[in-house]
Amino acid sequence: MRFVRFTIMKDPFKNARLGVELEGGVLDLRSAYEKWLIENKSVTKDAAQNLASIIFPSNIVGFLNHGDVSINAVHDIFENSRNIEDYLFLKEEVKLLSPIVNPPHLRDFISFEEHIKNSRKRRNLEIPPKWYEVPAYYKGGTSTIIGHDDDVKWPQYTEILDYELEFACIIGKGGKNISKENAEDHIFGYTILNDFSARDIQMDEMSIGLGPAKGKDFATSLGPAIVTKDEIKNPYNLSMKAYVNGEKWSDGSTSTMYRSFPELIEYVSQHETLLPGDILGSGTVGLGCGLELGKSLKPNDVVVLEVEGIGQLRNKVIK
Amino acid sequence: MRFVRFTIMKDPFKNARLGVELEGGVLDLRSAYEKWLIENKSVTKDAAQNLASIIFPSNIVGFLNHGDVSINAVHDIFENSRNIEDYLFLKEEVKLLSPIVNPPHLRDFISFEEHIKNSRKRRNLEIPPKWYEVPAYYKGGTSTIIGHDDDVKWPQYTEILDYELEFACIIGKGGKNISKENAEDHIFGYTILNDFSARDIQMDEMSIGLGPAKGKDFATSLGPAIVTKDEIKNPYNLSMKAYVNGEKWSDGSTSTMYRSFPELIEYVSQHETLLPGDILGSGTVGLGCGLELGKSLKPNDVVVLEVEGIGQLRNKVIK
Repeated sequence: MRFVRFTIMKDPFKNARLGVELEGGVLDLRSAYEKWLIENKSVTKDAAQNLASIIFPSNIVGFLNHGDVSINAVHDIFENSRNIEDYLFLKEEVKLLSPIVNPPHLRDFISFEEHIKNSRKRRNLEIPPKWYEVPAYYKGGTSTIIGHDDDVKWPQYTEILDYELEFACIIGKGGKNISKENAEDHIFGYTILNDFSARDIQMDEMSIGLGPAKGKDFATSLGPAIVTKDEIKNPYNLSMKAYVNGEKWSDGSTSTMYRSFPELIEYVSQHETLLPGDILGSGTVGLGCGLELGKSLKPNDVVVLEVEGIGQLRNKVIK
Repeated sequence: MRFVRFTIMKDPFKNARLGVELEGGVLDLRSAYEKWLIENKSVTKDAAQNLASIIFPSNIVGFLNHGDVSINAVHDIFENSRNIEDYLFLKEEVKLLSPIVNPPHLRDFISFEEHIKNSRKRRNLEIPPKWYEVPAYYKGGTSTIIGHDDDVKWPQYTEILDYELEFACIIGKGGKNISKENAEDHIFGYTILNDFSARDIQMDEMSIGLGPAKGKDFATSLGPAIVTKDEIKNPYNLSMKAYVNGEKWSDGSTSTMYRSFPELIEYVSQHETLLPGDILGSGTVGLGCGLELGKSLKPNDVVVLEVEGIGQLRNKVIK
């Protein structure tokens, strides 16, 4: 299934809603579940409205916190609903939002050897030997997430703006000390991540040995959908592409990840609880950013990232 | 005022409660407010219970999100309540918890020149020149916070465990692009922070240029109370001390901070929204950790941090 967050263009309140993308459009899960409760479970209208708004809140983090209760509710909608199309909106009628906001944590790794090799080479440095042992990561800002077709506002403090082509997984079931063998159970699905970067300030911060922080925390784009893991046969053999103003800048594959998400989950969850809605970013694929190509973004550039099986994530940079 | 989170020892449900420390004990804010609503505002018992549980939830982040509504509610309790002592618990009757949990962000800086000088000198390095221009920080884990008298469980992946003596401020009112001149308005209060560190893994992570993450995200101790800013006349002239098993290891002062919290707030809030409940850690005071002293912690060590005007924060390390 393809989970999205969206608003209905005509809605005067512009409420964010949780939905599933189908052939015919986007299904509003909350309304569909409310109807299902009334028609199948003898729930009164007011009680159905309350219950549906709890199980299908506007953010998928709340949905994931309800574990199997919310997953079963989705199955109930699809297996037993009549007239599901009452709550199906055409793609032209909706605006997609980031499929997840305010995750408990957003952890971003450097899982592609070619990216760390290229980025370091530009500073005449080798790959740090510890990289082969330790899957280091930084934690991104959780309140600066944007979605498909949202604009990236150029931070006034940077001269060098860049994109980063990444693949991300979303944690469904939380846990601690998870072995890589069991880690698949904890993955809900996958999405595309564009880790927009202010390269000048990022390099300043990294020279001090902390972060990065302001070099990253102005726009992290996610979307267009979270695709559940059952729909992605092999997450480690997906093509990854980036286009700037229609021109292909990056062309890679998830097959070149040095470490898989289960290995990253094993590392993070040592002595620390992974939470439903936590996001793990793969890091940039080799040659998946301007820094590695000797290029950077300009105002009004349109960046499209594409990961096979997930779709296209588009953002325009505005100054 | 001194805000705390606590449980009542006798409470079979061990519910966390928000309180204020007074001479005679700890006042349970939710119960006191419920009583005040019933006695002064013609609110029915059930409605008072609901409203009080919303304004005074078990975590101060929810309280701070209610802005002046919650601050005014505290004033109402103290100005107009009869028999406030009905909900006052003796210190012996309660167990303090971390005064804040699950903050939106926990940002930790390096604000003390002597600490960065000493830490780098041990690796034969100078202070990075950019440190004088850029207040770099890393983001700590928001779900591994512990409180006064909680044990620190030794992570199985480290050989070298250390403490860090820090001073922290808690954001009350959120905001974006806040100037340092206006930043005081956004501070709710101050607390003590012990940034327990796994030095071996921290150094590995920092050699890769990201984080630190696992080197820090197993135990960050906060407390014993959040002291509101009106009670701290000059936050930049407070003595800071650390004791290990009763022996004084560190002795510093907030007066040696190279940058004040308003300067840090100005930096962080550029193009990014600071949220109620966000925590900013000062970083370690000079000679405020074992690393700088050529020492480290052993199992069963008891670490007490003391910041003038806030109190003592005690934790035991167990393996």
